Amino acid sequence: MTGLKPSWIDSANAPDTDFPLNNLPYGVFSVDDGDLRCGVAIGDRIVDATGLEAAGILRADPEADVLDAPWWNDFMELGPKVWADYRARLTALLSDGADEQTQEAVITHSVPMAQATLHMPFRVSEYTDFYAGRHHATNVGTMFRGAENALPPNWLHIPIGYNGRASSVVVSGTDVTRPHGQLKGPNDTVPRFGPSARFDIELEMGAIVGTASDGPISVAEAYDNIFGYVLLNDWSARDIQAWEYQPLGPFQAKATATTISPWIVTAAALEPFRTSTPEREKDLLPYLQEPGPMLYDIALDVGLTPAGGDETVIARTNYNEMYYSAAQQLAHHTTCGCPMRVGDLLGSGTISGPEKDMRGSLLELSWGGKEPLTLDSGETRSFIEDGDTLALRGAAQGDGFRIGFGPCLGTVTPARS
Amino acid sequence: MTGLKPSWIDSANAPDTDFPLNNLPYGVFSVDDGDLRCGVAIGDRIVDATGLEAAGILRADPEADVLDAPWWNDFMELGPKVWADYRARLTALLSDGADEQTQEAVITHSVPMAQATLHMPFRVSEYTDFYAGRHHATNVGTMFRGAENALPPNWLHIPIGYNGRASSVVVSGTDVTRPHGQLKGPNDTVPRFGPSARFDIELEMGAIVGTASDGPISVAEAYDNIFGYVLLNDWSARDIQAWEYQPLGPFQAKATATTISPWIVTAAALEPFRTSTPEREKDLLPYLQEPGPMLYDIALDVGLTPAGGDETVIARTNYNEMYYSAAQQLAHHTTCGCPMRVGDLLGSGTISGPEKDMRGSLLELSWGGKEPLTLDSGETRSFIEDGDTLALRGAAQGDGFRIGFGPCLGTVTPARS
Repeated sequence: MTGLKPSWIDSANAPDTDFPLNNLPYGVFSVDDGDLRCGVAIGDRIVDATGLEAAGILRADPEADVLDAPWWNDFMELGPKVWADYRARLTALLSDGADEQTQEAVITHSVPMAQATLHMPFRVSEYTDFYAGRHHATNVGTMFRGAENALPPNWLHIPIGYNGRASSVVVSGTDVTRPHGQLKGPNDTVPRFGPSARFDIELEMGAIVGTASDGPISVAEAYDNIFGYVLLNDWSARDIQAWEYQPLGPFQAKATATTISPWIVTAAALEPFRTSTPEREKDLLPYLQEPGPMLYDIALDVGLTPAGGDETVIARTNYNEMYYSAAQQLAHHTTCGCPMRVGDLLGSGTISGPEKDMRGSLLELSWGGKEPLTLDSGETRSFIEDGDTLALRGAAQGDGFRIGFGPCLGTVTPARS
Repeated sequence: MTGLKPSWIDSANAPDTDFPLNNLPYGVFSVDDGDLRCGVAIGDRIVDATGLEAAGILRADPEADVLDAPWWNDFMELGPKVWADYRARLTALLSDGADEQTQEAVITHSVPMAQATLHMPFRVSEYTDFYAGRHHATNVGTMFRGAENALPPNWLHIPIGYNGRASSVVVSGTDVTRPHGQLKGPNDTVPRFGPSARFDIELEMGAIVGTASDGPISVAEAYDNIFGYVLLNDWSARDIQAWEYQPLGPFQAKATATTISPWIVTAAALEPFRTSTPEREKDLLPYLQEPGPMLYDIALDVGLTPAGGDETVIARTNYNEMYYSAAQQLAHHTTCGCPMRVGDLLGSGTISGPEKDMRGSLLELSWGGKEPLTLDSGETRSFIEDGDTLALRGAAQGDGFRIGFGPCLGTVTPARS
């Protein structure tokens, strides 16, 4: 495995930074009341990619400005060769040994991250969410249908997915209002309308489609079409879901918000951390078989901070627990001829590990509310309470460096009165 | 009820035209290899709205061109007051009695419809499909669960919906390739991958959101936010659906294509045809109650034409059979805080009537394939065969005029080999 690539920006060489030269994730930022600009994280700074393009120092397309927009979609449209070329030239600009003139130009076109506000890094075309973590599906199935029938009959054959709502995807730091919805609990004789009392997180990774396709594609093609990854919190109202989801799936339970981390970590940066999906219990059909390792070793954790309190880490798991990779999910998504577009976002499904403290949702952690969690403060939680801040974090650990995502944060505010 | 509004364009005064002056639906067209332009249907002509705007004859916004794009989204963004004002001024230009100079200018900026190719009239932001026709839900439920359990417990309380795939929405006339998918039929011991053998239509209306919203809205607000309607064919692979849809709903079964008719018929044009949803079997929660009639009386039919053969009309029904209106569906869609955007498309759900020949899908018409339909030629059909052309038609009938949609056509071509 490669080691740390040294940069002349000192903070990028710290072993605990999320953003060494090996990473170079893409985001969108603003300073004070300024315009939204495309930026690249390096150590504790953000390089102003929009500024470098306008100044002619680093251009993705010699003919057209693609970074004069508040998203990376136009850049993604240029395709994998341009992605690789741009990353190589960006790496050169920031590498130890870059000449003084280069360093001065980059400093001119960069800002301290602490001064910046981060925004959605890309425009979400459509959002699809999967249900492809075996431990999660087994836990949820056991609660609802018993251990014998935990996994649906199709689960080991299909990466089960459903379409979500792109308009509800927000960037880390956006407050999330507790939703209202139609509810019918076990003690209700008729349905009622009110705030969700079982509001939850789902710890997921999001894969971003960078190359469009118009018909069925292979798993290998799907792998090449994925531009990068973010952390993803698929906020879920369990009580709304329980009443609405039969027969056509979750709808309003999942449409309040989906929070993503602010930096697109590229597939290129994650390349050294590729790992295989787990052994198959049943052979997959050929169209779903992976030609090589297409999952990643990314350590993940979830923190819960009550209003005014301290954080408790409530779960630690790893993206390598998934039964299906994003490439398999994307290939399956195209089987019927469904066109995929640049900016499509695919949620992995909740990532739980085999142990109790590796579960990626409160539904699982509190076993449907029957075994409330105890926080470090002594407070307990079955589901999210108003004022709680949930933080997802993730990083791939290299030798002397790590590829981090930056936190994926959201605070739940009270339901509208 | 109002009668025909006479126009100086004679073909608009024929009692059987879909496009009298009372209608004025919005579409996008091109002639030969020319640019895509926004147009308005009137009789057998298309008025070039992009040209009228550029010439300063009829502008929606005095400051900015909104029709120099291949869609009506920018026009919709201007809001209901502009929609009404534009429609009034357009009506004046085309009314009997318009002066000679006006008539000459309009003729200059119009083309015979027969010379034009029609394109998608708007850019679909996101697509949601509902399941809100009671006869359809009862028929399908009876086939799958028996007559006693036909309607799911939530059905009379919630307009059940699921998110569809906007990228697969196409305009009338686009061929539809029979999809492949993962299948496991009653005779299969393991799943297999192959072409759908039970490919079907769903006769629906599509409502187009013209005003964005960021939080929950009332049914009355939802009604005001709907810009117009199209016919919608939600092509469905029943065998893919049967294997994939539990527990999270239909996914690849519905993502091959959804065909819409080419003209957006405005809510303004349909105003005289408002009608109430049917009597409630169970009271709706207040947030879903309609303050007035919000459904429309629109006669619908479906024709099936085998390759090289003649058409058989296989179903006749009416939009007034729906249990929930589009306004109720849109209001429900926002309950959890889900943001809605200009260009969102809401499918009504399959529109079936109480009689056998009023069913809006082959699944229902052939009762799951057990009672194949006999076409006028003597051929039979359980589901769609390669080369079949399916046509949806719809019109609201006034006194001496009708508000028509233009056909919603699609021919099914063989699966990829």
